Amino acid sequence: MLIVLKQTATEADAELVKKKIADTGLKPLYLPGEEKVVLGAIGDERKIAKLELQSLDFVERVVPVLKPYKLCNREFKSEKAIVKVRNVEIGGNEVTQIAGPCSVESEEQIVSTAHAVKKAGAKILRGGAYKPRTSPYAFQGLEEEGLKLLELAREETGLPIVTEIVSEYHIDVVGKTADMFQIGARNAQNFRLLKAVGGTKTPVLLKRGPASSMSEFLMAAEYIISEGNPNVVLCERGIKSFFTETRNTFDLSVIPLLQKETYLPVIGDPSHGTGVRDLVSPMGCAAIAAGADGIIVEVHPEPEKALSDGFQQLTPPQYEEMTKKMAAVAKAVGRTSASLEL
Amino acid sequence: MLIVLKQTATEADAELVKKKIADTGLKPLYLPGEEKVVLGAIGDERKIAKLELQSLDFVERVVPVLKPYKLCNREFKSEKAIVKVRNVEIGGNEVTQIAGPCSVESEEQIVSTAHAVKKAGAKILRGGAYKPRTSPYAFQGLEEEGLKLLELAREETGLPIVTEIVSEYHIDVVGKTADMFQIGARNAQNFRLLKAVGGTKTPVLLKRGPASSMSEFLMAAEYIISEGNPNVVLCERGIKSFFTETRNTFDLSVIPLLQKETYLPVIGDPSHGTGVRDLVSPMGCAAIAAGADGIIVEVHPEPEKALSDGFQQLTPPQYEEMTKKMAAVAKAVGRTSASLEL
Amino acid sequence: MLIVLKQTATEADAELVKKKIADTGLKPLYLPGEEKVVLGAIGDERKIAKLELQSLDFVERVVPVLKPYKLCNREFKSEKAIVKVRNVEIGGNEVTQIAGPCSVESEEQIVSTAHAVKKAGAKILRGGAYKPRTSPYAFQGLEEEGLKLLELAREETGLPIVTEIVSEYHIDVVGKTADMFQIGARNAQNFRLLKAVGGTKTPVLLKRGPASSMSEFLMAAEYIISEGNPNVVLCERGIKSFFTETRNTFDLSVIPLLQKETYLPVIGDPSHGTGVRDLVSPMGCAAIAAGADGIIVEVHPEPEKALSDGFQQLTPPQYEEMTKKMAAVAKAVGRTSASLEL
Amino acid sequence: MLIVLKQTATEADAELVKKKIADTGLKPLYLPGEEKVVLGAIGDERKIAKLELQSLDFVERVVPVLKPYKLCNREFKSEKAIVKVRNVEIGGNEVTQIAGPCSVESEEQIVSTAHAVKKAGAKILRGGAYKPRTSPYAFQGLEEEGLKLLELAREETGLPIVTEIVSEYHIDVVGKTADMFQIGARNAQNFRLLKAVGGTKTPVLLKRGPASSMSEFLMAAEYIISEGNPNVVLCERGIKSFFTETRNTFDLSVIPLLQKETYLPVIGDPSHGTGVRDLVSPMGCAAIAAGADGIIVEVHPEPEKALSDGFQQLTPPQYEEMTKKMAAVAKAVGRTSASLEL
Repeated sequence: MLIVLKQTATEADAELVKKKIADTGLKPLYLPGEEKVVLGAIGDERKIAKLELQSLDFVERVVPVLKPYKLCNREFKSEKAIVKVRNVEIGGNEVTQIAGPCSVESEEQIVSTAHAVKKAGAKILRGGAYKPRTSPYAFQGLEEEGLKLLELAREETGLPIVTEIVSEYHIDVVGKTADMFQIGARNAQNFRLLKAVGGTKTPVLLKRGPASSMSEFLMAAEYIISEGNPNVVLCERGIKSFFTETRNTFDLSVIPLLQKETYLPVIGDPSHGTGVRDLVSPMGCAAIAAGADGIIVEVHPEPEKALSDGFQQLTPPQYEEMTKKMAAVAKAVGRTSASLEL
Repeated sequence: MLIVLKQTATEADAELVKKKIADTGLKPLYLPGEEKVVLGAIGDERKIAKLELQSLDFVERVVPVLKPYKLCNREFKSEKAIVKVRNVEIGGNEVTQIAGPCSVESEEQIVSTAHAVKKAGAKILRGGAYKPRTSPYAFQGLEEEGLKLLELAREETGLPIVTEIVSEYHIDVVGKTADMFQIGARNAQNFRLLKAVGGTKTPVLLKRGPASSMSEFLMAAEYIISEGNPNVVLCERGIKSFFTETRNTFDLSVIPLLQKETYLPVIGDPSHGTGVRDLVSPMGCAAIAAGADGIIVEVHPEPEKALSDGFQQLTPPQYEEMTKKMAAVAKAVGRTSASLEL
Repeated sequence: MLIVLKQTATEADAELVKKKIADTGLKPLYLPGEEKVVLGAIGDERKIAKLELQSLDFVERVVPVLKPYKLCNREFKSEKAIVKVRNVEIGGNEVTQIAGPCSVESEEQIVSTAHAVKKAGAKILRGGAYKPRTSPYAFQGLEEEGLKLLELAREETGLPIVTEIVSEYHIDVVGKTADMFQIGARNAQNFRLLKAVGGTKTPVLLKRGPASSMSEFLMAAEYIISEGNPNVVLCERGIKSFFTETRNTFDLSVIPLLQKETYLPVIGDPSHGTGVRDLVSPMGCAAIAAGADGIIVEVHPEPEKALSDGFQQLTPPQYEEMTKKMAAVAKAVGRTSASLEL
Repeated sequence: MLIVLKQTATEADAELVKKKIADTGLKPLYLPGEEKVVLGAIGDERKIAKLELQSLDFVERVVPVLKPYKLCNREFKSEKAIVKVRNVEIGGNEVTQIAGPCSVESEEQIVSTAHAVKKAGAKILRGGAYKPRTSPYAFQGLEEEGLKLLELAREETGLPIVTEIVSEYHIDVVGKTADMFQIGARNAQNFRLLKAVGGTKTPVLLKRGPASSMSEFLMAAEYIISEGNPNVVLCERGIKSFFTETRNTFDLSVIPLLQKETYLPVIGDPSHGTGVRDLVSPMGCAAIAAGADGIIVEVHPEPEKALSDGFQQLTPPQYEEMTKKMAAVAKAVGRTSASLEL
């Protein structure tokens, strides 16, 4: 931790900070500059963070040297993790394809979609039973009925299931069905929910919040891991920016950046990342070229009849076409990705 | 609802949309342009929203004419609402002052702060017992012990209490103490929590999410009101932008804008809005000049010893100074605000 | 300057950096941490900046201790500057009112507006003769004819003139008329233009770019001052954020923040800051409460006939009403502001 | 153009707007809704735009149906354009590689880089002689001397040259050397400069402004084309967002989005888009997967000695490695890209 003092700070001020640092058991350092004094503290920065030194009027800035995340930090565990969802691996050489409808709507809809996406190369089925919607007047999901339909689709196809959990209350009911919990973007900093899924062993697909920095995103993962569940997969799904001609700004650079910072697998969601059907396929390919460990896509047999997000869902033939392209790009970057042809 | 078709759309496409609109019971309109066709639908737009017409390939854009929020829409209820927190009103001619520490830390801390802010003009005491923190390693609040200390401070000073609720699980335990629930920025789209507080009669201080548009903010209020609780106060507390030299970008323009759109009271939080101690007082005054119905400020007897957010908390004398300035500005815009001198 | 090395950096790497620092004539410091090494350099950081140490693969981060702006830095000149535009002062105790139409459109329009805004309290007349417009098909200004009309309005009313300059080519032609150059938001980083106005003695109203950080904004001022022209007034006029329900996000917090960092006067532009007529008056008042040294407002005799920005221009009676409110707020914060009544 | 009236608008208000529309020679339409009235105008929307109807108090919103850009609009010219820079094509099936140093620094530097990037597959050499820098204290470029060195490098290698122009004054001096003008991000809305290059026949590489929406970006192209120069290539180079862990947010989705809206070639700049050396190669590959028609990369023989942007420049061997990867990805998406091996 480095502490930059204001130009007006006195020697007594510097002594006070040095004493505070020493009192935590860390070793203080003193760096006199020509205009400003900088102090340093060697050791576990969390101890210094608790001092809230930035609240002192003569402190200009506190600059952390170490990263606030420990358990998911690649500096301490260099080989990439592989997260297993039943028999499917995320984080290995294969780019894992995940697909399915935004919401589970009916038996026919989910089962037929499951068959279609499996045929096209998907290894995990997505589908929302509990839907967080901006409007209370919008379709909120089939809830428990939706979970049963997901189980049915799994029986029929063998695809493991990832489905969203929106409340601590649902740990048991959703946990019974889900092979992987999804934490949605709006709950990206719902720390109680993060702790709750952290208390299970079920893998977690953690979506980035629309306003989450990389550090906030990794600290959310840290909440889950610090409760005992190391099976976290990160998902970039677009952030908010001034640019509103796409639904979100799909921040692909964060994928290789995250892979420098953490050993956790990182996947991309071009459906929410763009919100524009025609962009889903090129941006899914781009995510793979950027190094994504998986791609999650919304697919619906009849998007124009979907109860949610119809405008960004692909039809099964469109998805088939997309997986072929993604497989070619994966190969170009030295990886594999399943598609109809493989 | 207006539906702009692509230039390549055929007459049959237009007919299809007209039929879909008519099937919902609404009346379709047809506007042939020189280059593009626009269709309209007269009536309740929520019915058309469910059609997800933007998922049709020949539809370029869907433009809502009506606002998605109904219950909090000023078009349907023009006089401003007053929300009562025990005997204190928010939304009347007086600008309501709310103050207290970020976190409840000890009996002495909360009781002495309560006395100090009351003396300076505050009418409601704030204090967090359950703290949502970015880092799992940061202080998470005294929880139930904190609630008891808040009750003690209320007994001592008579100030009603606003305190954060972070989980549906806590409706009873926090609800027993709180005179007003606070929904924090990170839970701004935790719809389950919004519904849960909507199921009570306790007033709710709803903070804007750091990435919430005005419409998303009002839809969050709509969740609460549609469950039966009309006692909602909106709070602007800063949004995320590229500008990081303040903790957030305090979007004051949204205050008068919200007051055009809704009858609900709107307050400002300059502590989180800026995250810089020296800016809290000028920006609190600015919020009042912009039309805020209240100001919530973090005050701590010894900010440099605070367990959270020390850098943005004021000391009691600083807060006293601030309330005097705010009272003068309130008077200048034809309102009142309590301070030591009044 | 502090240089944080990566955990994998060797002692030889640290030695290399120390040598590079010493070679510039500065004194290197060495701070060994438990996990990472930090190096420091005492003295003029611009020398170190030129080393581009962040380009070394073993360097994690370079943290400047000093600010990149020198000439406009309040650390080196603590008393506030007053910029004189003819006989009008900006930066003193009076909040200076500047008003006029977006564009000069005709003799009658500009002269009648000049009279009207003078009567309402304005001390400087604004009006664009050269207009930078997003669309090449939009009205581009009356150019030289517009300058002549501005001179006429000045003769009639005695109000000094601020008008935009959009090209180095116009230094002479605009400089002959203008009492103050305006650099618009789109030219906020047109460094050639900044240098050109820096080569004159004419005061400059420098608008913040829609994506300018505080540091970038001050560096733009530094360009002007370093060419020899110290008469710079900064103007916050809104930034781009995800929030598009106002034209820009009016970042009022930057006003008091700038006043901590620089001695230059800082004014606010609520017309462009909000782009919504009804918000201009409350946000102008808010800017004064936040500490602005002046307010610039667009006023047009018939906004619905304006050739540009009609939607955000006030009528003269609306502006009169606004100056009364601003005068009251100015008084509340211990300043003055002219209005019809004073 | 659609004009949504406020709920409080009267019939007379609607009549007034209809008359205004009819007076422009366009045909007005009337759409009565249950709550609000919507009016339409059929024909050239630029005529209606000039009415500034949004300035009328009873108008809630004006919704354009047509796009503001005409000359670069794909609706009017469906086949993709190919821009020729000497003998090199941009916009064909080959992904055009452009590379070179941020700044021209010396003969040896530019000539050796030119040879190196040519060998690796680059078809055009980039290099800045006039450098727009945030700080007036930073290296500003070798100016005319730099242009001469670029000519020398062209003679030696045959590579055409793209170099930045920062002022109208330089049209002749830069135009004499440049095979392609570059308009940098900070001049993205310097309309005078856009018009100046529009007055030549030299191809233009137009970078997106860090706060430019797609529409603003295309309107900048429209400025150039409407002056008579159709040879415009668009370049995405990152936008400003709240996310500051990369230098900019590289908005790759805009590439396929632009290609739907315009026939102009679109390229990507992963060097500025990310500002992180390790991300340049994966994000260049991602840009190609997203459909980019070219990639521009900063390459320097010794980045740690560069006078600008050293931290994001690649060494020649790193660039060689990158072009190999890009060629593989180009092939995967059905295109070609030159590299050492091809």
